[in-house]
Amino acid sequence: MKSINVKIPATSEQNYQIKIGSDLLGTVIANVRSFYPKHAFFLVTDGELIKAGHVDKLIAGQTIAGRYVIEPAGEISKHIGTVGAIIEAMEAANLGRDTVVLALGGGVVGDVAGFAASIFKRGVPVVQVPTTTVSQADSAIGGKTGVDSSISKNAFGTFWNPFAVYVDVATLKTLNERQFRAGLVESVKHSLIMDAGYFEFIEQNLDKVLAREPGVLEEIAGRNCSIKAGVVEKDPYEKNIRCILNYGHTIGHAVESASNYEILHGEAVGIGIIAAGLIEKQLGLVKDGRLERVRNVLKKLDIGLKMPEYMDKARVFELLRSDKKSVGQVPRFVLLEQIGSVCSVGGQYAVEVGADVIKNVLDEL
Amino acid sequence: MKSINVKIPATSEQNYQIKIGSDLLGTVIANVRSFYPKHAFFLVTDGELIKAGHVDKLIAGQTIAGRYVIEPAGEISKHIGTVGAIIEAMEAANLGRDTVVLALGGGVVGDVAGFAASIFKRGVPVVQVPTTTVSQADSAIGGKTGVDSSISKNAFGTFWNPFAVYVDVATLKTLNERQFRAGLVESVKHSLIMDAGYFEFIEQNLDKVLAREPGVLEEIAGRNCSIKAGVVEKDPYEKNIRCILNYGHTIGHAVESASNYEILHGEAVGIGIIAAGLIEKQLGLVKDGRLERVRNVLKKLDIGLKMPEYMDKARVFELLRSDKKSVGQVPRFVLLEQIGSVCSVGGQYAVEVGADVIKNVLDEL
Repeated sequence: MKSINVKIPATSEQNYQIKIGSDLLGTVIANVRSFYPKHAFFLVTDGELIKAGHVDKLIAGQTIAGRYVIEPAGEISKHIGTVGAIIEAMEAANLGRDTVVLALGGGVVGDVAGFAASIFKRGVPVVQVPTTTVSQADSAIGGKTGVDSSISKNAFGTFWNPFAVYVDVATLKTLNERQFRAGLVESVKHSLIMDAGYFEFIEQNLDKVLAREPGVLEEIAGRNCSIKAGVVEKDPYEKNIRCILNYGHTIGHAVESASNYEILHGEAVGIGIIAAGLIEKQLGLVKDGRLERVRNVLKKLDIGLKMPEYMDKARVFELLRSDKKSVGQVPRFVLLEQIGSVCSVGGQYAVEVGADVIKNVLDEL
Repeated sequence: MKSINVKIPATSEQNYQIKIGSDLLGTVIANVRSFYPKHAFFLVTDGELIKAGHVDKLIAGQTIAGRYVIEPAGEISKHIGTVGAIIEAMEAANLGRDTVVLALGGGVVGDVAGFAASIFKRGVPVVQVPTTTVSQADSAIGGKTGVDSSISKNAFGTFWNPFAVYVDVATLKTLNERQFRAGLVESVKHSLIMDAGYFEFIEQNLDKVLAREPGVLEEIAGRNCSIKAGVVEKDPYEKNIRCILNYGHTIGHAVESASNYEILHGEAVGIGIIAAGLIEKQLGLVKDGRLERVRNVLKKLDIGLKMPEYMDKARVFELLRSDKKSVGQVPRFVLLEQIGSVCSVGGQYAVEVGADVIKNVLDEL
């Protein structure tokens, strides 16, 4: 038998900028074109963004090679069929490797468009232009792309870093109230895992946030992006510490799936954060009144923190087994040590929790 | 406006081994399991491999978590729907990130299974076990995965390096004659772009190769893997020199697509190599009798070197524009300087060729 060694060299660094401001949509294409003067631009968005006038603001006098409008908007379209339709539309438009994909929209648009960009001709650049509280705080940054399977959330996808991210808080003005509030849960999550001072800021300024005051929105966008970028830089491919961004997401994803996406991502993560708090309590990790402080902030968001009556708890438990953090089908949880920092056990941030503890908590929810 | 820089560090090297021998199928799983003792194994293959007994030899007493049999075998199944079906089957089997995908089969199995592995839970390891002349020489090595769009060949895919490659030349015994011969074109291609001595070896030993003498098959497998690995190491993501592996593939891919895959990949590349030779002649690059030498070797393979009568040459020309090497829809070609080395123009190996030259050559084919 003969052996040949193939040495694939390390890739170079992949750095990118997040630009945060108000009313910057109209500058995006010209800005990206200065880096890719000969590339074609292909837009992925959904009908909500057209209706709100954001697509017109983004394109404003620029030529683009084509567009794909995801219909219907929302999680129900976050499946591999949508990705296939986007890349076939790009093929039909005769596009090549010299194409930039623009993702204008919320988490679904960003995740699906990023996935499409990552597999079109084995990868073309994507520019993320998030327009919701959840995507501006979380999903547009960090290079995770993906779609749901018929069973679980974000089951299929790639790591594909954006060429750049443009966070325009002015786009939040047109977001409906339910989505606006649900997405703020990711801000609460960032503060809980990383920055007690930020959590206090949220406690003190939540009324202004809910009134959508631009200055405060820019402030939290900046803090969210800094926290997320800081974690992603340390561990871009989620070998370990990146999983802390999954705080509240283990039960959150399962609840979201089990509701057939009737419950929004942020709402489900709200339930998941409460669930994580109850697990922490059962394991004796909660020593101060922090669970009440967390609950108070989430209550003020008015997003519904109970599992709906119709939900089958056995099915939620079953879904936990196929969570991406599971090892040998045993689910693992990120847990808080205190507000602003997470636990680690033997250097691992995703901790195995006994089935009895999980079942107790599901009963309590 | 605020800016935040995200610094994604370089990835580490990704090295892997190619093992080449005869009758080594039965050792593959145990060998991989020594590196991944707790991982589940998921097999992707097709009905031909079951019928030939290779699946039984591979599994032989080992436990695997599930399998997906691509039906029908062949290029017609190389589309994104098959990839979706494989990853849904993996989800249904409750598999997680701790899964190894085994790809046992020809180019279609390897490309589709590698693509599936690269997007399942954002990427799990794949082990390539190629069983055809084309996959052992070419597609199983180098980390390119992909499927065809409704318009063009390998339009969608990823770069995903295998964990290991096992080349068992004994599996070639059961390959049908047409596929066996067509796949040898990739060996001819490797010799043409890289190694005049290897081309002479093929000229002198083609009868033994066609008689499937194991010693000669191991010899050419080793040479193919060394040449391919050498190029891939220099340029894993095809920024430049890797495109020389595409010699004969520009018109080859277009012919293959235009035939709706009635013409096998290797047969189409045979036509593409002749086409490249005719382009070289028109451009005055051919100064010796090399075109005849190349034609003689390919003729001996008896794979049909003419475009079929039914083929629409305008459609072939149109397809060239969406080739992945095209820039601004202008096709580019890899061309030979002499047997064993390729041309480069200003450091570029994919060279723009005028539409008139291409049309002349298409008429001549």
